[in-house]
Amino acid sequence: MTGAAIRTVDPRPTPLKARRLGIDTHQEAVVYMRQDCPVCRSEGFAAHARVQIAGPGGVVVATLEVVTSDLLDHDEAGLSEAAWRRLGVRQGDDLLVTHPPALESLSHVRAKIYGQRLGRAALRMIVDDIANGRYADVHLAAFVTAGAGHALDVEEMVALTEAMVAAGRRLDWGDRPVADKHSVGGLPGNRTTPIVVAIVAACGLTIPKTSSRAITSPAGTADTMETLAPVDLDLTAMRRVVDKEGGCLVWGGAVDLSPADDVLIRVERALDLDSEGQLVASVLSKKIAAGATHVLIDMPVGPTAKVRSQPEADRLTGALRAVGASAGLQLRVVQTDGTQPVGSGIGPALEARDVVRVLQNAPDASPALRTKSVVLAGALLELLGHAAAGAGQATADAVLRDGRAWRKFAAICAAQGGLREPPRAAYTHPVVATRSGRVERIDNRVLARIAKLAGAPSDKAAGLELHTPLGGRVDRGQPLFTLHAETRGALAYALEYAGRHADVIQIGADA
Amino acid sequence: MTGAAIRTVDPRPTPLKARRLGIDTHQEAVVYMRQDCPVCRSEGFAAHARVQIAGPGGVVVATLEVVTSDLLDHDEAGLSEAAWRRLGVRQGDDLLVTHPPALESLSHVRAKIYGQRLGRAALRMIVDDIANGRYADVHLAAFVTAGAGHALDVEEMVALTEAMVAAGRRLDWGDRPVADKHSVGGLPGNRTTPIVVAIVAACGLTIPKTSSRAITSPAGTADTMETLAPVDLDLTAMRRVVDKEGGCLVWGGAVDLSPADDVLIRVERALDLDSEGQLVASVLSKKIAAGATHVLIDMPVGPTAKVRSQPEADRLTGALRAVGASAGLQLRVVQTDGTQPVGSGIGPALEARDVVRVLQNAPDASPALRTKSVVLAGALLELLGHAAAGAGQATADAVLRDGRAWRKFAAICAAQGGLREPPRAAYTHPVVATRSGRVERIDNRVLARIAKLAGAPSDKAAGLELHTPLGGRVDRGQPLFTLHAETRGALAYALEYAGRHADVIQIGADA
Repeated sequence: MTGAAIRTVDPRPTPLKARRLGIDTHQEAVVYMRQDCPVCRSEGFAAHARVQIAGPGGVVVATLEVVTSDLLDHDEAGLSEAAWRRLGVRQGDDLLVTHPPALESLSHVRAKIYGQRLGRAALRMIVDDIANGRYADVHLAAFVTAGAGHALDVEEMVALTEAMVAAGRRLDWGDRPVADKHSVGGLPGNRTTPIVVAIVAACGLTIPKTSSRAITSPAGTADTMETLAPVDLDLTAMRRVVDKEGGCLVWGGAVDLSPADDVLIRVERALDLDSEGQLVASVLSKKIAAGATHVLIDMPVGPTAKVRSQPEADRLTGALRAVGASAGLQLRVVQTDGTQPVGSGIGPALEARDVVRVLQNAPDASPALRTKSVVLAGALLELLGHAAAGAGQATADAVLRDGRAWRKFAAICAAQGGLREPPRAAYTHPVVATRSGRVERIDNRVLARIAKLAGAPSDKAAGLELHTPLGGRVDRGQPLFTLHAETRGALAYALEYAGRHADVIQIGADA
Repeated sequence: MTGAAIRTVDPRPTPLKARRLGIDTHQEAVVYMRQDCPVCRSEGFAAHARVQIAGPGGVVVATLEVVTSDLLDHDEAGLSEAAWRRLGVRQGDDLLVTHPPALESLSHVRAKIYGQRLGRAALRMIVDDIANGRYADVHLAAFVTAGAGHALDVEEMVALTEAMVAAGRRLDWGDRPVADKHSVGGLPGNRTTPIVVAIVAACGLTIPKTSSRAITSPAGTADTMETLAPVDLDLTAMRRVVDKEGGCLVWGGAVDLSPADDVLIRVERALDLDSEGQLVASVLSKKIAAGATHVLIDMPVGPTAKVRSQPEADRLTGALRAVGASAGLQLRVVQTDGTQPVGSGIGPALEARDVVRVLQNAPDASPALRTKSVVLAGALLELLGHAAAGAGQATADAVLRDGRAWRKFAAICAAQGGLREPPRAAYTHPVVATRSGRVERIDNRVLARIAKLAGAPSDKAAGLELHTPLGGRVDRGQPLFTLHAETRGALAYALEYAGRHADVIQIGADA
């Protein structure tokens, strides 16, 4: 039936020499090639094209940037850090650059955009291509957009969760119950995790906690923990800590759990899009991949938290429960107060100090952080069957009060490489009340932004310390919060922004 | 009601020196800064962040790539070609790099994603941000995705069209009727435009035609015309040609009509998403901005054309008519045969030869290209009132036959800088039939891809020449098409692909 006969001529692509340019393009693999190099000429590549690069040890799809200057030689292909890392090449290795295979999974993304449901196989293909770096930013954004809001039903969420687990490594802890917790987020200074892990592990239970670094917040749990102990452990080291102490508090990035999730999260944040389905799959895929069997979800609800209203919270709770049940997880959601930060510090070292003060039963420990940690740990102890229903908080409280939680925490830090003292900022600056009255409203988002402008999370000591919680009374001229920064420039920048957002903390008249 | 008092400290951002790196990132503005430069440190910028760059002559928003090597000095900010061009800076100029202002228009994109209708003001804000380069790829993809399929109603299409016109320059030709034409595309070798312009201008009418270069096709009208005459004219030069000859055939890129459209088209192609609303706005905004009053739309319909079915064609025709009417355009849509290429050449120079053969009434001129050009020119002459209903084709045919169209075409080329001979390829290679029979089906998309792999459109002489139309009879061993390439490598590459897609031309048994 078909007709064209071809005398085959071998296309013999010309290899180029790998050169590390030392350009950090975050997750995106980028290759730099001269406009007049033999490959660009023969393959007809133009700037921003997607190309496939094959090295001695692997293949990646990258975005091409075309060099019109002498930055590179004709026979060189420059690589961004992400491309260099994923190809695992050495300087001068031969690279073959060709057109990438067609992205078949995009037809499923298009089907979703046009309103169709996606099945298991389709979501598996999409997630596999994402985890393997085959999607450019425009493809990622299209998939995130197509799944925004309530576009995924429970079956699709289950399939997406499974696909995200399958795309990465999955930890196996044998038959014992394995605890995990997650906070839905949006609340600065909500650093209950180290305290909950310490309490649960002190009870002899297993809680191998992997945490993320901050993406858009002033501190992730991994950033905070890093000021107290090394967190950059590989899987073998992590297992050693958990086998010895029952728990750990490490950075999840080195362990390669649900790698597609990290890629999608970046795009969701850039678009500031909420997607129920992707949130559920993101949270639960990480827990399932980490080998958890019993999962506690902390869901702060408040107008400037991630979950802003009670109907939204209830709907999300239902979706988490349904997908968790389908995956065989024991799961409990605790809806918590999301109207103000928990603890007084915001920023890695400042939050670490809050954590240590609670664990050490210090007189200046934050009551809110202590209470919330006890509530969450208690719920987890009940879920694990370690405490009877209603008795979890009392157990957690006792373990914290008598120093067992602090000793366990110190032991975990020692096993991870040594407990250390969080750094202190070189510059501090108080921001004071312009009137007397009661604190009526705190904008978590603006507060987080101020802490980031002060340098958090990359400057570990940077951030801010809140002095008065909601409902507290302040006098005119009394400090509302203190900025901490490692450089004068960052301090100035944060102050300038705070000045333009003086309503970050609203003070009302006395009752 | 609010409370934070600030002693303002001037943030005094540190200027960096502009350095042109000679990196072509296509449309995207990219800035390269050292990780340890004072600005990255004080502002807390991370790789892939969006930043604002202010130079002596302008401001752009760019994507940050962080340099961890000695590619740059501490006090330098490297710029991609797009950033360099848009900032209009010189080597060593001072640049201030800061956080960009919030993208307020993204809230409207999110509203559309969540299914709301967008009003005039919202679409104006979005398009303005796009035209000014403030959207990253993820933002563009989210907007394109949100408008995919039939997501925009007629009112939204009208508003989007107006916003796209308003974001660029708009040409004014006074009170005379101004003709324009557009082909919806997807059909290779469909190069009727130069012939239609020549016929219409030869009738004494005004047709200032701006055309695009190829984005994903083997040739755009501007690429084809460039092998015959200069097309890179600025507005003044274009006006001079139109005032003298009544018509022109220039590249639209230098004239800055509907700049948001070029940005959106790139993303739509990368996603291979069809969007009725964006197609209508794209086509009509360019025509309105070019000052057209009478617009003819050629809509090829066929299974491998852009418009694949009759219902789709009728729906799109209705939308074009409604939006055109709302904009005050006289508009006519002609649905044409989209089952096979028009003319025999595919690729800039090969299509140019087809055009010239028709204009010169050569014995080997393509009958299909001639007929289609006469049909379209006739419809346009009727729309302009130059011919009575039903008499347009006869008028167009006469103008072509007696040489007036060719003389007008040659005069336009001369006015644009001089008529020239299209180049010929160094390498040609026939692809022959493996059986005898009739040509039953031609896959336009695969044919276009083969021509591109042969080097078109960047290699002007590259492409392919079809020897037998649909329904034509071939003998085994007789050439079906001939590949043309400027390099041996490109020829080999196109042959290899053609070998894997031997069903590009299907041959059936004789009846």
